[in-house]
Amino acid sequence: MTLSIIGLGLIGGSFAKDLRASEFARTLLGVDASPANAARALELGLVDRVVALDEALAQSDALLLAVPVDAIETLLPRLLDAVRPTQTIIDLGSTKLRIGEAVRNHPNRARYVAAHPMAGTENSGPDAALSGLFKGKTVLLCDLEQSAPDACKTALELFCAVGLKFEFMSAEQHDRHAAYVSHLSHVAAYALSLAVQSEEKAGYAVPRLEGGGFASTVRLAKSAPEMWVPIFKQNREHILTAIDAFSERILEIRQALAAENYAKLDTVIREANRIRELL
Amino acid sequence: MTLSIIGLGLIGGSFAKDLRASEFARTLLGVDASPANAARALELGLVDRVVALDEALAQSDALLLAVPVDAIETLLPRLLDAVRPTQTIIDLGSTKLRIGEAVRNHPNRARYVAAHPMAGTENSGPDAALSGLFKGKTVLLCDLEQSAPDACKTALELFCAVGLKFEFMSAEQHDRHAAYVSHLSHVAAYALSLAVQSEEKAGYAVPRLEGGGFASTVRLAKSAPEMWVPIFKQNREHILTAIDAFSERILEIRQALAAENYAKLDTVIREANRIRELL
Repeated sequence: MTLSIIGLGLIGGSFAKDLRASEFARTLLGVDASPANAARALELGLVDRVVALDEALAQSDALLLAVPVDAIETLLPRLLDAVRPTQTIIDLGSTKLRIGEAVRNHPNRARYVAAHPMAGTENSGPDAALSGLFKGKTVLLCDLEQSAPDACKTALELFCAVGLKFEFMSAEQHDRHAAYVSHLSHVAAYALSLAVQSEEKAGYAVPRLEGGGFASTVRLAKSAPEMWVPIFKQNREHILTAIDAFSERILEIRQALAAENYAKLDTVIREANRIRELL
Repeated sequence: MTLSIIGLGLIGGSFAKDLRASEFARTLLGVDASPANAARALELGLVDRVVALDEALAQSDALLLAVPVDAIETLLPRLLDAVRPTQTIIDLGSTKLRIGEAVRNHPNRARYVAAHPMAGTENSGPDAALSGLFKGKTVLLCDLEQSAPDACKTALELFCAVGLKFEFMSAEQHDRHAAYVSHLSHVAAYALSLAVQSEEKAGYAVPRLEGGGFASTVRLAKSAPEMWVPIFKQNREHILTAIDAFSERILEIRQALAAENYAKLDTVIREANRIRELL
């Protein structure tokens, strides 16, 4: 089939690499709002040709939307306006509710499949694309009952081809879930980065940090605002709730430590350790 | 030389593997308060013999203390009471000030070298020991002017043999620094784990999480209370300050999001992104 990837960054580029390797797509077309990114993607061999969005829609069996969630919210209704009954449009955004609402009553809603592959790195752009990024990871698929069976089949086969496992849920469940397991992790990492940077500016040098647990905890603080401000915006209420739950648990730890209640601290840490059972 | 490792867990066991491989130590003796851990360490070939602490002190050129920081605080003065002028005792604790104070006026203080290798994983026990754990990482060496030159030489050669780079600082600087780059990361991870677990109990299932950024951000929440409660206790004041700085930055993000001030959120994320320059 001919597949178009809209957005040739970390996620779009990584799909390009694995879909080409798996021979899922015979021809890969790429679309990117940045001419520099598009040229670089071509240079890296991520796609066969770079085309305009309209041409991508005209020539493809399926389109993969790998752009920031605010761009998806704008693009998706326009694409559905012109989609043919044999085409499938799949978005890969980190939020699902507002995107779904933007096309809920669209006459061609059934051509769209809502997906969120839970994989990534803190890097962005075509050079960040990685082979095997999705292998063994999970894609959250939302509101599949609103998608046509043949569109679901295309999406599931595409995700299967890159090694993703499936979870099914509603967009509402997805956004609440993602607020805790993905978006809150970014808030924590950003705040940790800011706290450590202030300390460093105060003259407490922070020499080579790659060794401690800090590097893994703060890793997501490198994630770009172009991607994350729209996510925060679209999932604002769930993220605020998650931040409050997080702040409460920080306060619980702080209070135990301030009160020198080490028995309580021990209990809290043992409870936190149970994350082993979930991971 | 004959080297004794006191505490045959992740850190002690990993030193054993690399020091044996580098031929730094001809004979490795092991001491562990847990007979099960000691037997397992022997079975894994981490050490040549398991001995009592007194025997280790009698037979070794150098001793490496890889036990929780409260145990180091208790053990170190006792060991210095009986140390010979040719022996070196090195601790690997994650806090330095209180341990240093416990031996500040000890007549044999110069036989002791205060060190903190910034490396580890969230696992513990002899089975967690890893070859190459320290390669390219940094060991923070504290108050070296209080250690005898030959003791410093032994410690530095030992750390060099496992591939560690050096940073020198005072115990006071160390503890303030570690509060931000290591201890605070644990607070953040524990709180994140607790928040996500509450959510999961509330019925929002948390399916396979290994893909998102969550896994790396929460990794340290698996760290054992036996190690970490004593660290929190010994570095309580700096950790409280670090938690407050962290909470302030979380609040800053929360307020920008609550106010839908996305320009501010963009600025804050760009500032957080600068952690790239430090890592």
